[in-house]
Amino acid sequence: MKVILQELHSRGHNITVLRSSKSWYIPSTSTFYTAVNVSMLEDESDKNQYTVMLHDVFECHRSLTFLRTFCQQRLLTALLENGHRILARAAALMLDDPVFIKKMQDVHFDLMLTDPALNLGVLLGSYLKLPMVYNVRWINVGEGHFSIAPSPVSYVPVPGSELNDNMGFQDRIKNMLHYLYNAVTLHFIINPYYSDLLQRHFPPGTDLLSLQQRADIWLIRTDFVFEFPRPTMPNVVYIGGFQAQRAKHLPTELEDFMQSSGDHGVVVMSLGTFVHGLPRDTTEAIAAAFAELPQKVVWRFTGERPSSLGNNTLLVDWMPQNDLLGHPKTRAFVAHGGTNGMYEAIYHGVPVLGLPLLFDQFDNVERLKVRGAARMLEAGFLTKENFLEALKDVLSNPSYRRNIQLLSQLHRNRPMSPMDTAIFWIEYVIRNKGAAHLQSVGSTLPWYIYYSLDVALVLMTIIVAFMWTAVFTCRLICCRRFSRKMKEE
Amino acid sequence: MKVILQELHSRGHNITVLRSSKSWYIPSTSTFYTAVNVSMLEDESDKNQYTVMLHDVFECHRSLTFLRTFCQQRLLTALLENGHRILARAAALMLDDPVFIKKMQDVHFDLMLTDPALNLGVLLGSYLKLPMVYNVRWINVGEGHFSIAPSPVSYVPVPGSELNDNMGFQDRIKNMLHYLYNAVTLHFIINPYYSDLLQRHFPPGTDLLSLQQRADIWLIRTDFVFEFPRPTMPNVVYIGGFQAQRAKHLPTELEDFMQSSGDHGVVVMSLGTFVHGLPRDTTEAIAAAFAELPQKVVWRFTGERPSSLGNNTLLVDWMPQNDLLGHPKTRAFVAHGGTNGMYEAIYHGVPVLGLPLLFDQFDNVERLKVRGAARMLEAGFLTKENFLEALKDVLSNPSYRRNIQLLSQLHRNRPMSPMDTAIFWIEYVIRNKGAAHLQSVGSTLPWYIYYSLDVALVLMTIIVAFMWTAVFTCRLICCRRFSRKMKEE
Repeated sequence: MKVILQELHSRGHNITVLRSSKSWYIPSTSTFYTAVNVSMLEDESDKNQYTVMLHDVFECHRSLTFLRTFCQQRLLTALLENGHRILARAAALMLDDPVFIKKMQDVHFDLMLTDPALNLGVLLGSYLKLPMVYNVRWINVGEGHFSIAPSPVSYVPVPGSELNDNMGFQDRIKNMLHYLYNAVTLHFIINPYYSDLLQRHFPPGTDLLSLQQRADIWLIRTDFVFEFPRPTMPNVVYIGGFQAQRAKHLPTELEDFMQSSGDHGVVVMSLGTFVHGLPRDTTEAIAAAFAELPQKVVWRFTGERPSSLGNNTLLVDWMPQNDLLGHPKTRAFVAHGGTNGMYEAIYHGVPVLGLPLLFDQFDNVERLKVRGAARMLEAGFLTKENFLEALKDVLSNPSYRRNIQLLSQLHRNRPMSPMDTAIFWIEYVIRNKGAAHLQSVGSTLPWYIYYSLDVALVLMTIIVAFMWTAVFTCRLICCRRFSRKMKEE
Repeated sequence: MKVILQELHSRGHNITVLRSSKSWYIPSTSTFYTAVNVSMLEDESDKNQYTVMLHDVFECHRSLTFLRTFCQQRLLTALLENGHRILARAAALMLDDPVFIKKMQDVHFDLMLTDPALNLGVLLGSYLKLPMVYNVRWINVGEGHFSIAPSPVSYVPVPGSELNDNMGFQDRIKNMLHYLYNAVTLHFIINPYYSDLLQRHFPPGTDLLSLQQRADIWLIRTDFVFEFPRPTMPNVVYIGGFQAQRAKHLPTELEDFMQSSGDHGVVVMSLGTFVHGLPRDTTEAIAAAFAELPQKVVWRFTGERPSSLGNNTLLVDWMPQNDLLGHPKTRAFVAHGGTNGMYEAIYHGVPVLGLPLLFDQFDNVERLKVRGAARMLEAGFLTKENFLEALKDVLSNPSYRRNIQLLSQLHRNRPMSPMDTAIFWIEYVIRNKGAAHLQSVGSTLPWYIYYSLDVALVLMTIIVAFMWTAVFTCRLICCRRFSRKMKEE
């Protein structure tokens, strides 16, 4: 969100950011926005819960393949439940506070830009009746499209299922079960948290989904180089890769390290911001494998230094990931599979060895894997040997690099950069005070009307009645004739 | 198609056009393309059949409102049947001719650009395995989207139904019947013409729809300023209004006529290229109504001069329609409702009085009417009085102009002009040798898999079996206990 805000600011927009008063990653003062604090009841940035969760994920990895995804989904549900409990209470504090609401109304905002994964923006924006633009990938228990576009589960993989768009019968059973699991989670676990709040502040019959579906534009953080082709809607705009940009110069020290790798080049490894707690034996295995490579390695690592670390490996607290991936010496990216990292790999054409740990990371790596641009290793089963084999494969088999560079070429080949596209549509909604003409009426229909069940029932009744009448009439005529014949005889 | 070819030529592409040897509107020599003649068995440009048909349409207009659209659809089916009979035979002549096929193969075309309403391009392009881009609005018996994107008939009006996206129960019954009518027409009337041909030249199981669905990009000649918002697909690109452009200067004579209208301005009337045969009493009524206007009128008219024509009305054989609609003196557009004319009206923001006669014209005018940018008159019921009332309403009520200018603003407000968009995607397919990554696998699935019916059946069987077992086991236990009790007693 931050890079979009910076871009909007650079184009002269005035921005107000609603931040949790406990947030550690959204500073309360900034040169490019005014911050308004809202009370979050807990600190949403509790890193430790992910480390605890990681342990459970590793347990899941050891379960049967068919059940593993459900095991992981159950962990996610627990996390979501906790999140929505906090969010719903924070939203109630906000909407129940007439002073805060008055203050917000008085500003006369042009637009609410929000990520609907956290519903605070959706609830406040709807309450203030503001035109709304989403910067979205995840919403409720699934991916953005599932809340707005038709999503036939016969070929659209449900998030969390780790499937692709080429499914056998067993895969389709699994996909359907994931779909049903998510639907049940939404209706019976997440929705109830918001029902009191919605009843108090919105017209009767409003539910979370119907509020979410009223957004003017959905800026979805994917495109069809990454996502599998599937039905979409007129008010969905694809901005996948909006944060990737041409690599800038590296700091001298890092540049020297890169150059020292010679023709072998460098492997870059990062498992993202939130994950620190890989088990000790896993990090030792990774470090030992790295030590056997002719390449150099830059590893974003915080924690106890592995004892098996080789001389070729540089541990860093933080790395300019985009600039490293865009460096000509970079040969492979060992990553957890977050969306941003995957898009940076696509943008710069660097093949990936994915070690997905949580959330969407499995699905993300799967999307590069089926295009032949990545290998995937299950972190729960990682050993020095299989890690080394997979990494050597990614480094030496030219097909990975060829495939991701093809994706890179397709991803970059668009009429307008993803960032410019995002800004265009945000400004479009401001200029035109919404985009009602792009919103389908489908989402306002009850499900039995949407699927024409009432019409089908009436037509079928007419047909059956017609056939029954026809058969009855025929019988009557036949019987009469028969009885007449009998009489004659 | 011609304006796209001109644009492609101006950007340095070499173009070969396949034309019917009898075509009167595609010249065999041109500065911007090479023509290859193909044998059409009849002349596809027989204007008289539309005049004959018009008589039947007027008959339809006099039938009940609910049935009228079906009456018109029946006429269209007859026309389509004749067309596909000719096309299928022409396609057979083409594909059965090894010399012609060899000649086409030897050129190594980069791309087939075709309108799939006439299937010759689809069949030849598929046979030659060329990347394919459609310039499309109509295909088979319906609109392009119906062949490629999910189209819930609960809110997506079926072409020919004259409905909009806000349907009551009776409307939805009608829409469903139109949908079923079209499906039956496709499967039982159109498909059989091609089955022999497909069997001879394509792998077993290939049908018309499956060939059509393999196109890389669908350039659809609408956008959501005109069309009702509905599901779409990643390889659908909207180029509605691609032919409209800034108005050029009028010829001096016409400009003088326009200026002579003073503040009252000018009404422009055209019923398109194909229609000449309005009944005499209708043209007299129109001419008499025009004579009573303070405005001047430019009327594209070929035929016998109406006796009631006023001095304010200029009859012309041909008009620079786009330039006239873009002229500041133009106040209203009386039109039959062809797509091009509607988009020129939108582009220039001129309110419309629609007199739809055939085909999609009713649906087109409906789309402007529900946005408050047009009035519609049924030609079959046209009198001097109701025509004059409707036209005066369009001229004097400012809401029509306001609404169409709002549409104009939305239509023009896009990242790239429709023509540049069309060219970008055509060149995209050439550059990338197709766009397979944008084609969903949904269209390759049999319908029972697409709708997950097999999965639903298995899951339901398991649930029923489980419940049955549970009930059976309970009963068994109860019975035993009961009989033991009995024994004990």
